[in-house]
Amino acid sequence: MYKAIIFDVYGTIFDISSLKNNMPDFDDDLATSIAKLWRETQMRHMFLRQAMQRYISFDELTKETLRYALDVHEIQYNREDVNRLFEAYLDLTYFKEIPRALSDIKAKNIDLGVLSNGSDNMLMPLVDNSKIAEYIDTVISVDEIKQYKPSPASYALVLEYYKLKREDILFVSSNTWDVTGAANFGFNTVWVNRKNEVFDENGQQPTITVNNLNEMVKWLEMNK
Amino acid sequence: MYKAIIFDVYGTIFDISSLKNNMPDFDDDLATSIAKLWRETQMRHMFLRQAMQRYISFDELTKETLRYALDVHEIQYNREDVNRLFEAYLDLTYFKEIPRALSDIKAKNIDLGVLSNGSDNMLMPLVDNSKIAEYIDTVISVDEIKQYKPSPASYALVLEYYKLKREDILFVSSNTWDVTGAANFGFNTVWVNRKNEVFDENGQQPTITVNNLNEMVKWLEMNK
Repeated sequence: MYKAIIFDVYGTIFDISSLKNNMPDFDDDLATSIAKLWRETQMRHMFLRQAMQRYISFDELTKETLRYALDVHEIQYNREDVNRLFEAYLDLTYFKEIPRALSDIKAKNIDLGVLSNGSDNMLMPLVDNSKIAEYIDTVISVDEIKQYKPSPASYALVLEYYKLKREDILFVSSNTWDVTGAANFGFNTVWVNRKNEVFDENGQQPTITVNNLNEMVKWLEMNK
Repeated sequence: MYKAIIFDVYGTIFDISSLKNNMPDFDDDLATSIAKLWRETQMRHMFLRQAMQRYISFDELTKETLRYALDVHEIQYNREDVNRLFEAYLDLTYFKEIPRALSDIKAKNIDLGVLSNGSDNMLMPLVDNSKIAEYIDTVISVDEIKQYKPSPASYALVLEYYKLKREDILFVSSNTWDVTGAANFGFNTVWVNRKNEVFDENGQQPTITVNNLNEMVKWLEMNK
């Protein structure tokens, strides 16, 4: 049995597609299009910043990529608009099975943490707003070492916090690049494939693929 | 005046959208869709591999990402199909202004090289097939150090080959992430913005933006 289960945050616990619901400035189609480009650009910039060795914190990066998404959509904005739209990221909706699944895991006496590229000033309001804070022992942000996932150093942070062996940890993500990164570091991994997509293999496969976290809880019970 | 001008290859000299023309297995719409996903995945894997510190050569990466693009399109294939489709990358079409622009630059006694994430076994056939080899002094592949652009180490390779100062080099790319990476390393940069897109700012701006290489040649003449 695993001693700690570590979750990714954006896309795994919280539904990024809920971002558009927090953007009342725009009609639904426009909000959807902006939110999609915003998220894609955010991920690309994280990977590129890591490759360029030019870290900036996730809140700065999130504003920078928002400006790009607005520019591409030819939308005028000022600093206040950016700050207001940025707050869409602080109140995302969690996937519906999350509280029950986290509660079931806690009941098994497994430690439960998150490892995120988000900075504390974004993660803390999000976790607090969502009322799932009670299940999470440890919130780990890569901001501490200024290296984004999927760098090996980012996953190594988990070992510093938990003082466990790699094989005692199960890493859970919906993001294929995050599953690959964690597997590359040596963790067992769960890919939460909610949309029935093709795994983007990049040298690694997940230990197990599930459609949602309830399935993962069942798998844990079968693999005690 | 710059002493050497270094070009990116894929997307800058050669038109990636010509990829679909070399994929007679599929009708035009399907070829376009596969080629687009193939290229996007190829770039993402380069950045992720660089972040994960897990280099594989560009030919392997190109085949891996082709398989993903085929899987997403639910196309059956065997190893021979992959090898045949892979060859689409060895015979891309150059942008129409390229030979004249390169010839004009050579006439100014400026050294002319390329720096690519491509491996030699992909770059050499491409350059040779295109009959532009006569203009290019030096073909530099990051495969030599096994670190992809936009890592600082990849751009540093240019200085090893040319024994010049950074400010003597002009780096030219259509890929915004490549312009950013080169500028981040300290080169002056040209962004070749053929499709009138928004620059994806990621901490750096190009020295100059042009719509094609003819405009760049004019700019060089005005800035002797």
